[in-house]
Amino acid sequence: MTREKTRKIKLGGLYVGGDAPVSVQSMCTVKTSNVTAVLAQILELAQAGCEIVRLAVPDEASAKALPAIRAGTSLPLVADVHFDYRLAIAAMEAGFDAVRINPGNIGSRDKVKLVARACLANGTAIRVGVNGGSLERGLLEEFGSLPEVLAESALRQIELLESFGLRDICASVKCSNAPDTVAAYRRLAERTDCPLHLGLTEAGGAYMGTIKSSAAIGALLLDGIGSTIRVSLTADPVEEVRAGLALLKAVGLRREGVELISCPTCGRTGIDLIAAARSVEQLLRDVKTPLTVAVMGCAVNGPGEARHADFGLAGGAGEGVLFRRGEIVGKAPEEELVGALVELIHREIQ
Amino acid sequence: MTREKTRKIKLGGLYVGGDAPVSVQSMCTVKTSNVTAVLAQILELAQAGCEIVRLAVPDEASAKALPAIRAGTSLPLVADVHFDYRLAIAAMEAGFDAVRINPGNIGSRDKVKLVARACLANGTAIRVGVNGGSLERGLLEEFGSLPEVLAESALRQIELLESFGLRDICASVKCSNAPDTVAAYRRLAERTDCPLHLGLTEAGGAYMGTIKSSAAIGALLLDGIGSTIRVSLTADPVEEVRAGLALLKAVGLRREGVELISCPTCGRTGIDLIAAARSVEQLLRDVKTPLTVAVMGCAVNGPGEARHADFGLAGGAGEGVLFRRGEIVGKAPEEELVGALVELIHREIQ
Repeated sequence: MTREKTRKIKLGGLYVGGDAPVSVQSMCTVKTSNVTAVLAQILELAQAGCEIVRLAVPDEASAKALPAIRAGTSLPLVADVHFDYRLAIAAMEAGFDAVRINPGNIGSRDKVKLVARACLANGTAIRVGVNGGSLERGLLEEFGSLPEVLAESALRQIELLESFGLRDICASVKCSNAPDTVAAYRRLAERTDCPLHLGLTEAGGAYMGTIKSSAAIGALLLDGIGSTIRVSLTADPVEEVRAGLALLKAVGLRREGVELISCPTCGRTGIDLIAAARSVEQLLRDVKTPLTVAVMGCAVNGPGEARHADFGLAGGAGEGVLFRRGEIVGKAPEEELVGALVELIHREIQ
Repeated sequence: MTREKTRKIKLGGLYVGGDAPVSVQSMCTVKTSNVTAVLAQILELAQAGCEIVRLAVPDEASAKALPAIRAGTSLPLVADVHFDYRLAIAAMEAGFDAVRINPGNIGSRDKVKLVARACLANGTAIRVGVNGGSLERGLLEEFGSLPEVLAESALRQIELLESFGLRDICASVKCSNAPDTVAAYRRLAERTDCPLHLGLTEAGGAYMGTIKSSAAIGALLLDGIGSTIRVSLTADPVEEVRAGLALLKAVGLRREGVELISCPTCGRTGIDLIAAARSVEQLLRDVKTPLTVAVMGCAVNGPGEARHADFGLAGGAGEGVLFRRGEIVGKAPEEELVGALVELIHREIQ
């Protein structure tokens, strides 16, 4: 998989775009004005693996809390600003690493100029965050198709910001359905080298939102598009981080810990494979070494089918085998199989 | 989204390919020889929305059970056969609608010829099911890249079957990682007009497997590729059906019941949006009419951002509004908002 070449921007200690790994971000759900709650949530997100945190800055009270929030964490922070460019400037002065503005509501060219100048003065990056639900007036009439409008809106704003000398620009073109979102990002990726922040908006609850985001963001990542992602869910943002990291693993962009491969059980299965797969996942969840571990139902085909796995077990009638890169290295009765595999793995990775 | 043009095949009362809707399938996990258990599981799968059921036929005992299974259900049935072509023929004679063979182990040209002839004699369709873990010998050395080998293996088998006069052929090229699976299906779709059965193999447990399958199958569906899908999970097959249907909805290929769109909560949110979204999803789960329902956090932007939704609510501080296609149609205190929305929807769809 070749990744699209983009410019590289820096958010605190993290790079986005260029040759940097695709990063996972989320957004706080507590009131930004509540510094204690925000810092507690940022810590929780960071522990889950979140790499960039965004905060809504809807008013003066939120803006006032930003310096204390900035002082309380070293994670890259992004301020989400609508309507009022002065809130964006306040976030920059508080030391936020980026601000997100929405071309649909940030206002006139003069206001964008003030934002761009403040970005340059403070070394702040910007995300042009276009949203299918709050587009610039007139664009839909001019262009007709939603993906085209989303991309065009982002491109115009990027061009405007660049005309003021700004280069550290990231862009997003989110809408609530997968086909338009994918089409919009593809158009945008063809026409800019800014790193792209991928996501959908109003994707839904944890289950449907994860599936919709995996399809849309996954399709783009598999095409080499995207430098940072957010899986938006109407759920605890820790779930967003979990889903985002899982998606990066699923498309092969991140390797950390155990990747479990397991055959769907079928009428050929001799052992309780679902239980075995769950136990293996559970018992190895603290392993950080990137490993592929296979849990296969069939002792005859399993080791061969999963020969690309680092380790694996394959069950037979009442007993099964352990294998390492396709080679059988042991045998155990069914009830000891999972334990023996976990022991083998712990021994080998030490 | 334009779908790839494929030939159309018939499985019982269901069409696959051509202009037929993309269908969802799964596989029984109970022993095929246990007719009672199989029929109970087929019923459960059908109730979950499963449209095609596959059964493993690994031995003579399973083959013997097929006529009784066939007699007990009208759902399209597919027999999954490896190694022994005679089991495929037994399934056709039992009235199964299709058999799946694996070019990596079905054996010589003569055996494939016997299978093809039996397909023609019994009006049975065939799936050429290539699997990254059990490839034909020598192909990997000949072609080098896994996606190319997967596609080539399928194409050779399709050609061979066609040389015996068979046209009702479907194909799949599954492997356990998303990038290779997507690349293999894209190559295959360019070079055949057979309908494609999409899926990954050994995708993992319910969580990771759903994400990986959504990314890979979703990417292909969004490109217009795929006529039937299976989300393989090491989990209850009902979960496979649920995930498959959700994925079709997520990529816009199926509309049934409520599609919930909801903004991720943020520091701007005035109501408990996560709870409201969950309640709305729960209270409307029996609605069959295709509806988009929005649950938005912000009474100012919500109705506009979600103006494409059929119905919605948007919360403010302690109270909120109801809207219908972007137009505000009511107002209620926070604690009555969900109830009022559900009532409005039930009234309108009657």
